[in-house]
Amino acid sequence: MKIGLIGLGKMGGNMATRLIRAGHEIVGFDLSEENRQKATEHGAQVVSSLDDLVAALPERKVVWVMVPHGKPTDSTLEALLEKLSENDIVIDGGNSNYQDSMRRGEIFKAKGMFFIDSGTSGGIWGLEEGYCLMIGGDTEAVVHVSPVFADLAPNPKGWLHVGPTGSGHFVKMVHNGIEYGMMQAYAEGLELMRAKEEFGLNLANITELWRHGSVVRSWLLDLTAEYLKNDPELKELSDYVSDSGEGRWTVIDSIQEGVPAPVITLSVQMRLRSQQDQSYAGKVLSAMRNAFGGHAVKKVSDE
Amino acid sequence: MKIGLIGLGKMGGNMATRLIRAGHEIVGFDLSEENRQKATEHGAQVVSSLDDLVAALPERKVVWVMVPHGKPTDSTLEALLEKLSENDIVIDGGNSNYQDSMRRGEIFKAKGMFFIDSGTSGGIWGLEEGYCLMIGGDTEAVVHVSPVFADLAPNPKGWLHVGPTGSGHFVKMVHNGIEYGMMQAYAEGLELMRAKEEFGLNLANITELWRHGSVVRSWLLDLTAEYLKNDPELKELSDYVSDSGEGRWTVIDSIQEGVPAPVITLSVQMRLRSQQDQSYAGKVLSAMRNAFGGHAVKKVSDE
Amino acid sequence: MKIGLIGLGKMGGNMATRLIRAGHEIVGFDLSEENRQKATEHGAQVVSSLDDLVAALPERKVVWVMVPHGKPTDSTLEALLEKLSENDIVIDGGNSNYQDSMRRGEIFKAKGMFFIDSGTSGGIWGLEEGYCLMIGGDTEAVVHVSPVFADLAPNPKGWLHVGPTGSGHFVKMVHNGIEYGMMQAYAEGLELMRAKEEFGLNLANITELWRHGSVVRSWLLDLTAEYLKNDPELKELSDYVSDSGEGRWTVIDSIQEGVPAPVITLSVQMRLRSQQDQSYAGKVLSAMRNAFGGHAVKKVSDE
Amino acid sequence: MKIGLIGLGKMGGNMATRLIRAGHEIVGFDLSEENRQKATEHGAQVVSSLDDLVAALPERKVVWVMVPHGKPTDSTLEALLEKLSENDIVIDGGNSNYQDSMRRGEIFKAKGMFFIDSGTSGGIWGLEEGYCLMIGGDTEAVVHVSPVFADLAPNPKGWLHVGPTGSGHFVKMVHNGIEYGMMQAYAEGLELMRAKEEFGLNLANITELWRHGSVVRSWLLDLTAEYLKNDPELKELSDYVSDSGEGRWTVIDSIQEGVPAPVITLSVQMRLRSQQDQSYAGKVLSAMRNAFGGHAVKKVSDE
Repeated sequence: MKIGLIGLGKMGGNMATRLIRAGHEIVGFDLSEENRQKATEHGAQVVSSLDDLVAALPERKVVWVMVPHGKPTDSTLEALLEKLSENDIVIDGGNSNYQDSMRRGEIFKAKGMFFIDSGTSGGIWGLEEGYCLMIGGDTEAVVHVSPVFADLAPNPKGWLHVGPTGSGHFVKMVHNGIEYGMMQAYAEGLELMRAKEEFGLNLANITELWRHGSVVRSWLLDLTAEYLKNDPELKELSDYVSDSGEGRWTVIDSIQEGVPAPVITLSVQMRLRSQQDQSYAGKVLSAMRNAFGGHAVKKVSDE
Repeated sequence: MKIGLIGLGKMGGNMATRLIRAGHEIVGFDLSEENRQKATEHGAQVVSSLDDLVAALPERKVVWVMVPHGKPTDSTLEALLEKLSENDIVIDGGNSNYQDSMRRGEIFKAKGMFFIDSGTSGGIWGLEEGYCLMIGGDTEAVVHVSPVFADLAPNPKGWLHVGPTGSGHFVKMVHNGIEYGMMQAYAEGLELMRAKEEFGLNLANITELWRHGSVVRSWLLDLTAEYLKNDPELKELSDYVSDSGEGRWTVIDSIQEGVPAPVITLSVQMRLRSQQDQSYAGKVLSAMRNAFGGHAVKKVSDE
Repeated sequence: MKIGLIGLGKMGGNMATRLIRAGHEIVGFDLSEENRQKATEHGAQVVSSLDDLVAALPERKVVWVMVPHGKPTDSTLEALLEKLSENDIVIDGGNSNYQDSMRRGEIFKAKGMFFIDSGTSGGIWGLEEGYCLMIGGDTEAVVHVSPVFADLAPNPKGWLHVGPTGSGHFVKMVHNGIEYGMMQAYAEGLELMRAKEEFGLNLANITELWRHGSVVRSWLLDLTAEYLKNDPELKELSDYVSDSGEGRWTVIDSIQEGVPAPVITLSVQMRLRSQQDQSYAGKVLSAMRNAFGGHAVKKVSDE
Repeated sequence: MKIGLIGLGKMGGNMATRLIRAGHEIVGFDLSEENRQKATEHGAQVVSSLDDLVAALPERKVVWVMVPHGKPTDSTLEALLEKLSENDIVIDGGNSNYQDSMRRGEIFKAKGMFFIDSGTSGGIWGLEEGYCLMIGGDTEAVVHVSPVFADLAPNPKGWLHVGPTGSGHFVKMVHNGIEYGMMQAYAEGLELMRAKEEFGLNLANITELWRHGSVVRSWLLDLTAEYLKNDPELKELSDYVSDSGEGRWTVIDSIQEGVPAPVITLSVQMRLRSQQDQSYAGKVLSAMRNAFGGHAVKKVSDE
């Protein structure tokens, strides 16, 4: 089918390419000239404004929004609310907070339009391997867009209408929370093996080994093993670890629900810790140790 | 090749079967008549004593020990030390503590024998899919037994000589620590999705979905999705979760090494918590709340 | 001075008594006849409606609100907004969320009134020992009410104008987060000592000992030691531990700020865990263990 | 009474002074000339060898050992085993592992001597305020030394014979575990308050405030408030936090006992994290994020 696609960056650009390969027509828009250029090369029809994008679409317009969550998504959706008509369908395929999606769904519904939230997993590998899609929204609209979902997904089981509006992004949020926990578990284990210097373990070989028949085999392990082959010491990488929102939201949601999610939470907190240049909490501990025990404590100038 | 195999239970029995299918000859021993019977049916030559087992093996005897860690392994290895001769090889394929394996390796070495520790992953699926083997010991002995390793493993990459004696069980220990962390991450995420009642999420469908293209796809997820298909509410299962040793050892080792492994640790601790019928710590908290705030606290009789 | 006091329960009633003892006049209101009766006995002038309460106060009316947070506080404050006049002062001394207090402060300010948030610590001991008050709001209004703060506090250092509106409840929130962490630390330590059966430790004696010269001496320890004297086994207490809001808010706020607060967080989560009758996460772990290892798992019917 | 005291450093030197003030006679020994000199000035009789120390003591010799745990304690105790006689009493007042103390107790007992383990809390404040003593050993020997315990303690309730040999150091170990948890809770709370810049909170004033009537008042808070008065930003302190053994032992012991102690554990782990210059686990996370999401990750060269 012919759909609009707003956001032609790393994720959106690849999705356009994958859909075009499957025979769909993409009318693309992006603020960046470079991204627009690339999409053109991959076969998209690129326009230079939202008005042009809307104008280029056939009736019952379908627009996929793939821009950063928060303000960019908000302003894009507000513009589409003005420019689209009853029965049209907007899909937010980005990493929006599910509560925002529930709120936005209400606004579109009040105008007789449809809002679908699609949690999208797969990263840069989605282009070749397909994206796992967790979809929330009204059944009728989801069915209408299903040819697109089916071709983005790796296979017929790779997309699912999980529930009402908001549930797609909720399931994606939890997915990412789990991902944080898994990543941290691997990272801790690898660090412990590396610390056991007397065994002289080769982590690239061991992670490769575990891919074959072990209980911890996974796609994340596949990627890790490949990465370590080229750079087992990870010398050039910083131990500063960013977080992208869903992890924090999972923690907050679990606390609000009264569900203990300690491992997911701690995975987020270890990232927050990695983001600190100086930990004031650590300084407070040093102060206390000095105060009660007369312990010599490290000064900044010692470092 | 022809090797001895002591312990024909769930793990050992399957390994015997897999090796026999690959053309090896197995001389098996187990204290249980039932296990011996089963192994016979699968083609093993079964004997009724360790002496018979040793007698039945050709020169440069190779004996694989697959019995519960701790005392059973200790007494089996002590007996083998008496009955075997210089250059013979014993493999401990069970879940022994790697420090025990290092100690045992020294004892065998002092007698001119070889001790190999093989961390063995794969569970009940190993029979069909192959076992992932993490092997520690002297290279010459490992090479000698390599035809066995190769046929137990799912493919040539599924076994690895990771380092000196003890390192096989060490790597397996860390493997299991990571496994605990991954399992807890999935479990927390699933519980959070289940708690979001307004979305009416179908966890069997969602775990199946994630198998196709998501970042959290893994073998553990495969198993979970299959299990949930038959029993999504897990009504018959208790929330009591056992632990089998390696998780605790990973925690202790990380603390001794000074390596923070908070997520693996907490995964173990949540299992310990699940094993408590009554938490005295919880009662202490209730006592404090009552003491400072006059908070009405639950009495056992309210429950 | 003469002030209104809405909410004459466990906290509000004691505060009225303490203020009356110090020479202040209290016009009290409570929905409960019993609470009103008690306050009368302690010397308060009790009225039967908010209108009467307002009418009974002198110019520049000062009203202290001490009702449960959330809806009761909301409806009380909304009513006062209608009934009070410019320059009047309302103090929320309850456990409100600091963001609610910031919002409410704006509303009162827009009407030319003053809103003060007072985080109040001390529990049922405040009557005799005095309350620790963490106060947010405009300086002029805080100064006006200072005679009340001074007499509620145990001494001149026991109340403080910590910052603008909202900051009083924020500081109280963090105070409670710390309290959760301290309580959990003691509870874990006591449980570990109790588990060491071979030493036959007397926890009542040990907690009493620690009150004298140890690094962990504290008021919470004082209360714990006293409680354990009467009931060292805590036999009648449940291990179900409630939480009252501030702990969860501290977690959420720390995550939003990007500040790692793992110990406070985990203290909250262990309470959430204690509140679960059955842990679905635990059942998921049992399912996985069964699926990969064929581990016999506990059934509900075994318990 | 007249006792020997080996180790005249920060702790031992102060204990000597406190005992001399109370009328006891101290025969002191230390490897450091400076420490010996100081002890002489405070009234101790100082000797230059263990032989001289033993020779200077009256019958039923009592020797208090106050040296670093591990090897220094081991070698001192071994020397005393040679030099002392039946019925003599040795007290280890340092921070030894309780399992070492149990083992040492057996050795002394086999020679007809007495070994007492005294967990000693109070830090540099013990000199003036008294030490809290947790004492393990045979009752008869403990009673014999009780005049010394009584004068080291702040008051008659400040020392306690808690149980058999080893139990004194065990209780001290748990005490320190709790201390780690409390410290971390305060540190996290203070960091969160500091991060809330819009409130401009004065942490020195707030910690002082909390000392008066709040639920979190404690001796550790007293020290923290005093420290912050002089240096609220803790500018000169490093966030590197050492750990001294008991915290790690508490974690290990809790895991071995199967008792969940997550908050104490995490307090230790956050210290371990603070001791890392570069976290390999963090680098692994960066590698994974880069591998699956193409996320730009920080390079070491960016820092």
